[in-house]
Amino acid sequence: MKTEGLSINLATVRQQWKLPEAVEACRRHGITWVDPWRDQVAAVGLDTAVKAIKDNGMRVSGYCRGGMFPAADAAGRQAAIDDNKRALDEAAALGAKCLVLVVGGLPQGSRDIGAARQMVQDGLAAVLPHARSVGVPLAIEPLHPMYAGDRACVNTLKQSLDMAGQLGDDVGVAIDVYHVWWDPEVEAQIARAGREKRILGYHICDWLVPTKDLLLDRGMPGDGVVDLPRFRRWIEAAGYTGPTEIEIFSAKDWWTRPGDEVLETCIARYNDTFK
Amino acid sequence: MKTEGLSINLATVRQQWKLPEAVEACRRHGITWVDPWRDQVAAVGLDTAVKAIKDNGMRVSGYCRGGMFPAADAAGRQAAIDDNKRALDEAAALGAKCLVLVVGGLPQGSRDIGAARQMVQDGLAAVLPHARSVGVPLAIEPLHPMYAGDRACVNTLKQSLDMAGQLGDDVGVAIDVYHVWWDPEVEAQIARAGREKRILGYHICDWLVPTKDLLLDRGMPGDGVVDLPRFRRWIEAAGYTGPTEIEIFSAKDWWTRPGDEVLETCIARYNDTFK
Repeated sequence: MKTEGLSINLATVRQQWKLPEAVEACRRHGITWVDPWRDQVAAVGLDTAVKAIKDNGMRVSGYCRGGMFPAADAAGRQAAIDDNKRALDEAAALGAKCLVLVVGGLPQGSRDIGAARQMVQDGLAAVLPHARSVGVPLAIEPLHPMYAGDRACVNTLKQSLDMAGQLGDDVGVAIDVYHVWWDPEVEAQIARAGREKRILGYHICDWLVPTKDLLLDRGMPGDGVVDLPRFRRWIEAAGYTGPTEIEIFSAKDWWTRPGDEVLETCIARYNDTFK
Repeated sequence: MKTEGLSINLATVRQQWKLPEAVEACRRHGITWVDPWRDQVAAVGLDTAVKAIKDNGMRVSGYCRGGMFPAADAAGRQAAIDDNKRALDEAAALGAKCLVLVVGGLPQGSRDIGAARQMVQDGLAAVLPHARSVGVPLAIEPLHPMYAGDRACVNTLKQSLDMAGQLGDDVGVAIDVYHVWWDPEVEAQIARAGREKRILGYHICDWLVPTKDLLLDRGMPGDGVVDLPRFRRWIEAAGYTGPTEIEIFSAKDWWTRPGDEVLETCIARYNDTFK
C-alpha cells in the first residue's frame, strides 16, 4: 500500500508515544512525513526532536501550532507575538514546511468577534517578517465554527484567504477537511486557494455522526460522512502536490488503541481516499 | 420589565410543562408570544393546543418544525413532503406566523452533501404551494455547521437566502443567533434578508464557552459570548419588527430548573439585549 505523500500529524498518536518513538514507528511503517506539536517537542527538547526526525529520514509537513493572537490587553497580544516567533524558530530547526496557526478565539470576557479577528490580522502582520527571515511560511488554518469562541475566530477558507491576501507572500492556508467540509463555498475556495498559490497544508480525518465531543471525537478517514475522494479531486485540481496529513483527536477511540494499529489504519484509509 | 415582543419557544420549558401549562405560565408572566413544537402539540392533541393558545391570548411566532427533506429514496422524500404538509396544516390551525424548517442532513449512508442540499431545494419547492394555500410561509433556518451531517445541510444565512430566492415569495428565513453568530458575513446577510423581506423569525440564546454538548448545552442570553445587543441593532436596522424568540435546549441546566425561574430569567435577559 502506498505511503508516499502521507503525513502523520503526531497528535494522532500522542497518547501512545513520545515524539522519538512516534517518528521511529512512522519510519517502520514506511511513512516519510510527520507534523509534530510544540508540546511533543518540548517534552523531549528541541535538539532531541530534531535528531529523531533527521535520524529517521522524516520530512516535516508542518509544525503545530502557532496562533492564539487575541488577548485582553496589549501585553498579552505582544506575548503571543513573541511566542509565535519562538514557534517559528523551532519550526525552522525542525525543517517544517509551514507553521500551522490556530489563530485564537475571543479574549477572556470579550464578546467582540470582529475585534478578535482584527487582533489576528494584526498579529499575523507582526509575526510575518520573522517568518520570512527564518524561511517558514505561515499557514492560517480555518477552524470549524464550533471553535469560534475559544480556539479560532477564523472559520472559513474564504476568510482565511482574504486575510492572507492582505498580507502578501509567505502566508497561506492549511485546509483540514474536518473544519471546512460543510461549507457550501468550499469547492470554489479550494480552487481559489490553488490559483493564489496559498495551499500550505492539507489535513484529513472524518466527521462522525453522531459526534460526541466538540474537540476529541474526530473520526478515522472513512468512518464518517465526509466525501474524502471528492476533496482529494478538488485539492489535486487546485494544483496541490504536497503531503496529505492525517490528524485525529480521539480520546475514547484511536488514542486508546495500539499505535501500530493506528498507523496501519491510517495507511489503509489514506489509500482509500484515492478512489 | 418589558415583555412586549418576547416569544418563548416552548422547547425552553419542555421538561417542566406540557403545552397548556407552559402557555398558561407564559400568560402569567406577561408573555404574549410562544412557538410550540410538534411533539408538544401531539402530546395533548391539536384541538387542546389550539384552545390553550386561544384561551391564553397567545400569538404564535412560529411552529417547530418542518423540514428533514433528504432521504435515501424517493418514497422517503415523498413521505417528508407529506409530513411537511401536515405540519403546515397544524401551523395554520395554531395561527403560526411561519413554519420553521430544520431542513435535514445527509440521508443514511450518504456522503453527498451537495445532493442533500438539492433534495432540500426540491422538497421546499414541492411543499410551497401547500404553504401558500394555507397561508403559512416557510422559514428556512440555517443551522450551525456542526449539524450539517445529521440535522441541517443548510448552514449559513447566505445559503438560506439563496435558496429562498430561487423559490420566490412566501419563503423566508428564521435567524437564530446560536447558529450564525460566528459567520464573518452575518451582518451583511442580515441586511440582505431585510432588503429581500425574508426575515420570518428571530431566535436568541447564547453560545457557552465551553460548550459541553453539541445539541443540549445552549446558554441563556447573557451567559455566553454572543454580542446580543449588536445582533439586536442589526436585526432592527434590517427592518424586522416581529417578536424575539428565546429558544434554549439545556439538558443539564435550564431544563432542570423550575419553569417560572426560567421564564423570569428569559424576561430579564431579553431586556438586557436592548442595551
